[in-house]
Amino acid sequence: MRRSLVLAERPRHHPEASNFLLREDDIPRSAAGEVVTRTIWLSIDPYMRGRLSDRRSYAPPVAIGAPMTGETVGEVIDSADPGFVPGDIVLGPRGWQTHIVSKAKSLTKLPRDGAPLSAYLGVLGMPGTTAYSGMKDIGQPKAGETVVISAASGAVGSVAGQIAKRAGCRVVGIAGGPDKCLWVQEALGFDACVDHRVAHLGRMLQEECPNGIDVYFENVGGAVQEAVFPLLADFGRMVMCGMVAQYSDNELHPGPNLGAVVGKRLYIQGMIVSDRPERFAEWRELATPWVRDGSLVYRETIIDGLENAPEALRLVLTGGNFGKMLVRVGPDAS
Amino acid sequence: MRRSLVLAERPRHHPEASNFLLREDDIPRSAAGEVVTRTIWLSIDPYMRGRLSDRRSYAPPVAIGAPMTGETVGEVIDSADPGFVPGDIVLGPRGWQTHIVSKAKSLTKLPRDGAPLSAYLGVLGMPGTTAYSGMKDIGQPKAGETVVISAASGAVGSVAGQIAKRAGCRVVGIAGGPDKCLWVQEALGFDACVDHRVAHLGRMLQEECPNGIDVYFENVGGAVQEAVFPLLADFGRMVMCGMVAQYSDNELHPGPNLGAVVGKRLYIQGMIVSDRPERFAEWRELATPWVRDGSLVYRETIIDGLENAPEALRLVLTGGNFGKMLVRVGPDAS
Repeated sequence: MRRSLVLAERPRHHPEASNFLLREDDIPRSAAGEVVTRTIWLSIDPYMRGRLSDRRSYAPPVAIGAPMTGETVGEVIDSADPGFVPGDIVLGPRGWQTHIVSKAKSLTKLPRDGAPLSAYLGVLGMPGTTAYSGMKDIGQPKAGETVVISAASGAVGSVAGQIAKRAGCRVVGIAGGPDKCLWVQEALGFDACVDHRVAHLGRMLQEECPNGIDVYFENVGGAVQEAVFPLLADFGRMVMCGMVAQYSDNELHPGPNLGAVVGKRLYIQGMIVSDRPERFAEWRELATPWVRDGSLVYRETIIDGLENAPEALRLVLTGGNFGKMLVRVGPDAS
Repeated sequence: MRRSLVLAERPRHHPEASNFLLREDDIPRSAAGEVVTRTIWLSIDPYMRGRLSDRRSYAPPVAIGAPMTGETVGEVIDSADPGFVPGDIVLGPRGWQTHIVSKAKSLTKLPRDGAPLSAYLGVLGMPGTTAYSGMKDIGQPKAGETVVISAASGAVGSVAGQIAKRAGCRVVGIAGGPDKCLWVQEALGFDACVDHRVAHLGRMLQEECPNGIDVYFENVGGAVQEAVFPLLADFGRMVMCGMVAQYSDNELHPGPNLGAVVGKRLYIQGMIVSDRPERFAEWRELATPWVRDGSLVYRETIIDGLENAPEALRLVLTGGNFGKMLVRVGPDAS
């Protein structure tokens, strides 16, 4: 049997298990040009909160009664496309489901001797590519500049900061709690990491960024953004990747007065990684050797069982994850 | 005798005549590499408010006791530089003064058979170049797009909108009062102009911009920005040129929530025209024929007498000008 988590009702604030319904049906067969996979890994990402809401966004919401969307890595069990055979491992099937029917052309075949499969959803996948594109296309950090990364221990932030370190920058992370901050400094090699739960976040950041902030990689918004914004240097860049702190909010708070944008010639640019699809393969090729040799560090929080995906998403939205959040839906490739 | 307006005290809100002192001294002579001009036209521009304040900005403030700064067109009366002779007309001497000593290399000689001299401070000068650079380097309007210009009848906005019309855009102005709005539509040829003094500014703008706003040229800030921001389209650009509505304020109000910057992939970029000095000559060359053939329309508000410069500046900061604000300090070139 196939199990699917379908959207039962739209969450009012953070998502809860009761917003979803477990549906069972027969394992489907593929029609021409289609492939059926059994899901191994399901990626859980902050953007999913937007799909649960009928608020206007860059992508349409998931319909009530439809399976929730999400990127997976799976094993092909049935193929009606000449490009795939059972046993192939693929990236790209979408859905909170144990078995997924996909158009073959939406899938990327993964090597069995490459990086660990879960890495293709995190450090080498959408979050890693987001960090790469954000830095390459917007932030453009130069050696000697100061770069600040919010959600620094997260799937995007941890990669963004390591890219800035490779570019020769002073990199200061912002993360929630002493464990994450310690990991960001010790394991990721950031120059400093400030805990956003402390009082005087702005003053702490100012001490770590005595020449101001040249690049701010924004994943969080809210009080963190408020502390960072006044510290931006002349010609500072804000990579506007996400504002997870407000994704479950119904009322949005005002933001910074934009007068400083003129005087400091700030550059603020929003991004959605899929706008530059060529960056995915580019980053995978660039970073796979770094993952294999251990020089690009990442961390995962793994939760077992499809039925726990809503809780996994709630954790991502409230800072309860540590690194990339994944749900293990089925056993690894044989 | 030379007359100078020197800064006596920093204004608390809008500038007043009492913030300045009239000082008289001898007409100076030029030392090597210097040129002395008698001032014909003094340009009055919103940025001057920043120079009166000791708040951190991109340029240092004018010191108490020093002549107020401002760009002029003048006639050379004494030169100790081989590049200039008495009778030359030049752009570039700076100061609220009847006679100004300048380094010769800071001056641009103007043709006597070119555009009217005052135009070199407005439509062909710093404000015109600001509009040109803002559109060329940031806004990049494309045919068929919707462009909104605040302070649309002003020295910068009037040019910015005409550039967007030449690019084939739908151009909607925002201006203060029916006279200005009428002129923006009839004389400048904008497709529409909304009076920001009406109630429901946001709804009025939405009606004029049914497909959203692709480029917003920001000169004003405040309630106008608040009305425009939610109407920005996906991939919308904000040319952050100025926020004159708050230049005299001591407390800055919050701005828009930046969540939409991510979802809509907005691009917000601050500018100071002097960061791209090559644009000045480029624009002068491009636009002089348009001024001479009347296809680039501009309007001036002229106030006579150096002693009225503080009042002219107050008017610019409160919307009391109509087009480019100038002070006529001395008679035109002989």
